[in-house]
Amino acid sequence: MQLALVKGSVVSTQKDEMIKSLTMLLIEKVDPSTLKGKGDYLVAIDAVGAGIGEMILFASGSSARMTEYTTDKPCDCVIMAIVDQYDIEGKTIYQKD
Amino acid sequence: MQLALVKGSVVSTQKDEMIKSLTMLLIEKVDPSTLKGKGDYLVAIDAVGAGIGEMILFASGSSARMTEYTTDKPCDCVIMAIVDQYDIEGKTIYQKD
Amino acid sequence: MQLALVKGSVVSTQKDEMIKSLTMLLIEKVDPSTLKGKGDYLVAIDAVGAGIGEMILFASGSSARMTEYTTDKPCDCVIMAIVDQYDIEGKTIYQKD
Amino acid sequence: MQLALVKGSVVSTQKDEMIKSLTMLLIEKVDPSTLKGKGDYLVAIDAVGAGIGEMILFASGSSARMTEYTTDKPCDCVIMAIVDQYDIEGKTIYQKD
Amino acid sequence: MQLALVKGSVVSTQKDEMIKSLTMLLIEKVDPSTLKGKGDYLVAIDAVGAGIGEMILFASGSSARMTEYTTDKPCDCVIMAIVDQYDIEGKTIYQKD
Repeated sequence: MQLALVKGSVVSTQKDEMIKSLTMLLIEKVDPSTLKGKGDYLVAIDAVGAGIGEMILFASGSSARMTEYTTDKPCDCVIMAIVDQYDIEGKTIYQKD
Repeated sequence: MQLALVKGSVVSTQKDEMIKSLTMLLIEKVDPSTLKGKGDYLVAIDAVGAGIGEMILFASGSSARMTEYTTDKPCDCVIMAIVDQYDIEGKTIYQKD
Repeated sequence: MQLALVKGSVVSTQKDEMIKSLTMLLIEKVDPSTLKGKGDYLVAIDAVGAGIGEMILFASGSSARMTEYTTDKPCDCVIMAIVDQYDIEGKTIYQKD
Repeated sequence: MQLALVKGSVVSTQKDEMIKSLTMLLIEKVDPSTLKGKGDYLVAIDAVGAGIGEMILFASGSSARMTEYTTDKPCDCVIMAIVDQYDIEGKTIYQKD
Repeated sequence: MQLALVKGSVVSTQKDEMIKSLTMLLIEKVDPSTLKGKGDYLVAIDAVGAGIGEMILFASGSSARMTEYTTDKPCDCVIMAIVDQYDIEGKTIYQKD
């Protein structure tokens, strides 16, 4: 999995039947050591109710289909956790407000 | 999933039986924050009737086989949504004409 | 899928039983806008009878096992189409001789 | 698989039901020839009881679901071995204390 | 698949039950046109009895589980062929001694 920030949402009316009811969010990968955005964006299906600005974890590839929402769907990226806190070498780098 | 622009089409008469009837489009990944093409091209199967110049979402890997058109086919990239609009930090970056 | 040129062949006598009878070709990814090789090489199983110098499409990952030749084989890259022609923004970039 | 160092842990209360009880560790890929961190971080599920500072191996993609802990879970990265020692061209590069 | 050179071996006593008896080798990707190492290392399960210094082919992802040795194992990289020879544009670039 990788850390990313939720940056926005994506609207599509003309899409595959399988993903009609799912929420698609635009996420930006972050450098975990600096918390800075990498300028590398993905569009993910939200399986945990994430909001704009939240630090999340996403899973890629076939593992992105292993949530209740994404089973058998043409989805290669899913938000499967909202991050509360993480540390590097004993130092807290990120703490959710 | 990732955002890309449809740039053209690919014609092939000598291809695997499984993909004989499918439309193959040339797509270019875009930087979602600037809308500029990244010069990074892929060939995708079209599952939603996308046209040249449209902003689309594609899924990669095994998830690209999860549409009605691509099931069990040697396809690792599928267009599964045409984008109407997306925003970054509350600001609309792309809006379909 | 991605565009590549067939550059050569790979010979191996000591290989996994599952791929004993398959043709392995060395391919080089091309920049679709310039037709230049990217210096990025892969070894692919040939499912369509491609020859040296031909422009082809390859599929990666589990999708590379979705041809008659590669089913259940330890193959992560398959040539599944020989390209006749492709265009970018209405302009023909490549046309097979 | 790739070599990485365990750098920290990730805490999440709001996450997919499937991964509720699993330990998530922050890992940094290392250059095996120099033992230096690459600044490339991933979050992995721990299947072997790894600790901060340990050199580990992780598996990616669908293979990350092939441990007892990660079966059918939205996990694309698993720590499946703690490294005792490795060598390059006959020279020991890393030896666990 | 990709070309790589076997550079060393990796020892681990604390590892997932599924891979207990398998040989893990450190491999370095090579630039097929120059035969030079790219400084990009992976750890692969050996399915063909490869030795240090040998030029091999490896398969990645789920395809790495399609050998007799790696079925259903948390393995995302397998050596599935030892290379005897390969050529680029009719010129032999590599020939095993």
